[in-house]
Amino acid sequence: MKPVLYLSVAALLLSGSLLAQTPSSTNLGRNPFPQIGKDGRVTFRVNAPDATSLTVNLGKDYPMTKDDKGVWTATTDPQVEGFHYYSLKAGGLSFNDPATHSYFGMGRWASAVEVPGAPDADFYTPKQGVPQGAVRAVRYYSAVCGEWRQMLVYTPAGYEQNTSKRYPVLYLQHGGGEDETGWIYQGFADVILDNLVAEGKAEPMIIVMVSGVANKADGTGDGFEAMVTEEVIPFVDARFRTLADRDHRAVAGLSWGAKQAYDLGLGYPDLFSWVGGFSGIIVIGEFRSRPAGYEDPEKFAAAYNGIFKSAPQFNANYHLLFIANGEAEGSHLKGMSEILTERGIDNVFYQSPRTAHEWLTWRRCLYQFAQRLFK
Amino acid sequence: MKPVLYLSVAALLLSGSLLAQTPSSTNLGRNPFPQIGKDGRVTFRVNAPDATSLTVNLGKDYPMTKDDKGVWTATTDPQVEGFHYYSLKAGGLSFNDPATHSYFGMGRWASAVEVPGAPDADFYTPKQGVPQGAVRAVRYYSAVCGEWRQMLVYTPAGYEQNTSKRYPVLYLQHGGGEDETGWIYQGFADVILDNLVAEGKAEPMIIVMVSGVANKADGTGDGFEAMVTEEVIPFVDARFRTLADRDHRAVAGLSWGAKQAYDLGLGYPDLFSWVGGFSGIIVIGEFRSRPAGYEDPEKFAAAYNGIFKSAPQFNANYHLLFIANGEAEGSHLKGMSEILTERGIDNVFYQSPRTAHEWLTWRRCLYQFAQRLFK
Repeated sequence: MKPVLYLSVAALLLSGSLLAQTPSSTNLGRNPFPQIGKDGRVTFRVNAPDATSLTVNLGKDYPMTKDDKGVWTATTDPQVEGFHYYSLKAGGLSFNDPATHSYFGMGRWASAVEVPGAPDADFYTPKQGVPQGAVRAVRYYSAVCGEWRQMLVYTPAGYEQNTSKRYPVLYLQHGGGEDETGWIYQGFADVILDNLVAEGKAEPMIIVMVSGVANKADGTGDGFEAMVTEEVIPFVDARFRTLADRDHRAVAGLSWGAKQAYDLGLGYPDLFSWVGGFSGIIVIGEFRSRPAGYEDPEKFAAAYNGIFKSAPQFNANYHLLFIANGEAEGSHLKGMSEILTERGIDNVFYQSPRTAHEWLTWRRCLYQFAQRLFK
Repeated sequence: MKPVLYLSVAALLLSGSLLAQTPSSTNLGRNPFPQIGKDGRVTFRVNAPDATSLTVNLGKDYPMTKDDKGVWTATTDPQVEGFHYYSLKAGGLSFNDPATHSYFGMGRWASAVEVPGAPDADFYTPKQGVPQGAVRAVRYYSAVCGEWRQMLVYTPAGYEQNTSKRYPVLYLQHGGGEDETGWIYQGFADVILDNLVAEGKAEPMIIVMVSGVANKADGTGDGFEAMVTEEVIPFVDARFRTLADRDHRAVAGLSWGAKQAYDLGLGYPDLFSWVGGFSGIIVIGEFRSRPAGYEDPEKFAAAYNGIFKSAPQFNANYHLLFIANGEAEGSHLKGMSEILTERGIDNVFYQSPRTAHEWLTWRRCLYQFAQRLFK
């Protein structure tokens, strides 16, 4: 197929035509597969004449079948719109599909498909004419971890030009098995903020993304909190034109990163006053205990050095406590939000329609959260 | 092994101890394998109890053997120091090893090992106390290609602070099968420049990296030159504080990107006056013709609209023509440099000791080239 035809087809598909299948937006270059059908079924195609068996795993295993030219195909059950990691499996190994971009997830560089159909996709779509921020990759040395690490830092449009202006900062954490690149390449955080700021819906802000995997160099365990509070925040405040106080500093995260965000946001009230957790609970007491720690009034009052002990004081002290997840993830976070509300703790709850524990949920969470920040 | 021990071992190995094997610096997290022996042999280890056959390809195939715990192992022939892509092969498919970071090469996200032992590794090693630049990922819309694309832009230390200062720009291209991320993640271009600038050996400069794969949206072929000259350069000059003239604009590239750099640098003398080609010839006439185009005086004089026709004029017009490769790549580029010199065309030739067509060669080429720029 000639590029010009291909692009026309893609344009038609994107505009919601009647054509049955569209290449995943995660495909490398102009690879035609994986493709997604209108019903959300994903079709994979792999050219491997010498392979004797091939399986694709997207949530579950789908054995692939080979045609007489050595091309293997499988089509999945319908998938909900959004971003889904997947693997190829052969010879007892799981690995990524060279047909797509790779994304750091599942603890390795992984393949993924984007199932289109989100009615609100506009908010995370780049647009011509929208002033753009920039994402910087910055190497930094962590003495806590004893190693060089990378942080990604989003600065909003105008940061380069308005050189006397200082900006509030959002620290934004990825989920388990992911790293500091997730919020940009899976989450489109930069596009979401560019669009929000251009529409006047969000304040221009700096976003800092670091890997949440941070083992102490001395072998004494997790160094994440020490690294962020003692190294990352001072580094960012020195390097970038930040508003370096708690009133202008937010923290949020998804899944495992939600726990980290609550630990930072509620555990360090001198540093943060805006806190968001996407698809993760406020862990109080033992993880996965029943009743959950937040359901137990005594544990709750003791948590995070008593941060919730006095609701009026918490409400006066914190600008925002934001709790969110995807509808398909269940109601436990809605329950948590309601318990907090019953106890007088102001909080905002948001649920992403239809979506599961994946990046479309978290893009929407960020979209909602960012609009409430620094106002 | 405890992290603290691991780090001590790594430190010893890096300092050239007698220990036999060291994990590749490309490994994800603290994965112990692949490991490199003192003799440059690489040992791979993959846990795959269910696999029936497994091969690793690093230059050639090495069948792996399975122990009674289902762990597969193979050790390669000695490899020259530097950065080498590799693949795992099973069931008729080639794929990357989840044990390492992935790098865009071979037209897909690929695994790689870094064989240590370069006596000059210091120049591409990050150092505490060296002021750092930053690498930005910037999305831009190319009308030529009809798509959103990403460029990486390195700005030197001080760029954020010295807000009235303008900087010269180097456009830097990757090789075939790679993309705009190669010069940072495989090439350490940012670290090399940070170190050079800190030592006063190179001028602070902006480096722009775009993907060289740029098909025109209208299906009429390669849009690379149009994209760079009509879109990328004006975009960069508008977005960043550049010195926007040919005296302060350089172009270089490696392998396929060397051809692109020569095409830009010699084909657009109004735009560039500093040109570098690493491991790539100046293609004049038919590619791979014998004699090579540059050996034929008539073709040579006609090339690039007669840019080489008058040696004195070329020498007066261009600040630098830099030609380089790795010693193991052979003598053809040295020959090309000598022919140019015989014809009176000033040029600088550099050869990286021992190394082949890989990233250690190109790191050294950049190190040499950057020191000669904008002076």
